[in-house]
Amino acid sequence: MAKRALPLAEVYRLLEPGPVVLLVTARKGRANAMTMSWHTMMEFEPPLVGCIVSDRNHSYATLRATRECTINVPTAGLARAVVGCGNTSGRDVDKFARFGLTAVASARIAAPRIEECYANLECRIADARMVARYGLFVLEVVAAWIDRAVRRPRTLHHAGRGVFVVDGEVLRLRSRAK
Amino acid sequence: MAKRALPLAEVYRLLEPGPVVLLVTARKGRANAMTMSWHTMMEFEPPLVGCIVSDRNHSYATLRATRECTINVPTAGLARAVVGCGNTSGRDVDKFARFGLTAVASARIAAPRIEECYANLECRIADARMVARYGLFVLEVVAAWIDRAVRRPRTLHHAGRGVFVVDGEVLRLRSRAK
Repeated sequence: MAKRALPLAEVYRLLEPGPVVLLVTARKGRANAMTMSWHTMMEFEPPLVGCIVSDRNHSYATLRATRECTINVPTAGLARAVVGCGNTSGRDVDKFARFGLTAVASARIAAPRIEECYANLECRIADARMVARYGLFVLEVVAAWIDRAVRRPRTLHHAGRGVFVVDGEVLRLRSRAK
Repeated sequence: MAKRALPLAEVYRLLEPGPVVLLVTARKGRANAMTMSWHTMMEFEPPLVGCIVSDRNHSYATLRATRECTINVPTAGLARAVVGCGNTSGRDVDKFARFGLTAVASARIAAPRIEECYANLECRIADARMVARYGLFVLEVVAAWIDRAVRRPRTLHHAGRGVFVVDGEVLRLRSRAK
């Protein structure tokens, strides 16, 4: 995918609609991808993203130790890889190999991005104080990438138990909101 | 709408897909509705929801003072009311009257629910320690209501600047996730 830098002030437009994302961490040259739906924007600029990573997830220890990750936004064509990454653990599976994902180098951090996702956010932990109690990591997005050729990204939204809702019709309304 | 109680363990299935919601607070007999997309599930049961309410919002002071609110999930038919609630402030507008919303009594809290929304969550603040820094309120859902007749709720997802994506196709995949 031919990606360009996305201005950081535009990052909220990717995550605010609540898509399922793939969170990628890496340690000792080995990258792992975790499927995640529990995230929210917390600030526009610099973009802050709050996300819940449970200590039952293999990514938890790597994220705490390396303090960085990428958030990758898949579209419906990647649904099987998204579910596959959710059904397996990086403890015993190389998810990139198993699900045909390509790791590409990030610009600002060591954890790679996923080539097949139309947008990638490079993140560093900004605040880990709510991790022990809630598994809540506050991440700052330090670089963002998007494939502008994907005009209407059909992202996925998880409604529980394998039910995924795909983006449908687009409404344009006169909103004063950002 | 004929609503029934929704088991609290099922609440995540409403919010995990990231819909735009209406947050309702009430004080001195006056209810107000705020359009909100910055929220995430934080725990399954009891259901905890993290949401960002800025101190620039009229709802902020009421939420802090009363420590309770309802989260109401609208579908696409309410898009104009959703945008209207986002474009106006409870400081100068009675949004329920202006946008044709009906306040119905909650079971466990004083803030009302919105009749026209297919699902309603009654919430109390569980943790306000991240409010000063991030406007992050951790809410516990203490009662939940749903209209089961709405089989495929076409919820809204805000992608910035008045662009709303409506739920489309549903995929059912073999996920081991909850």
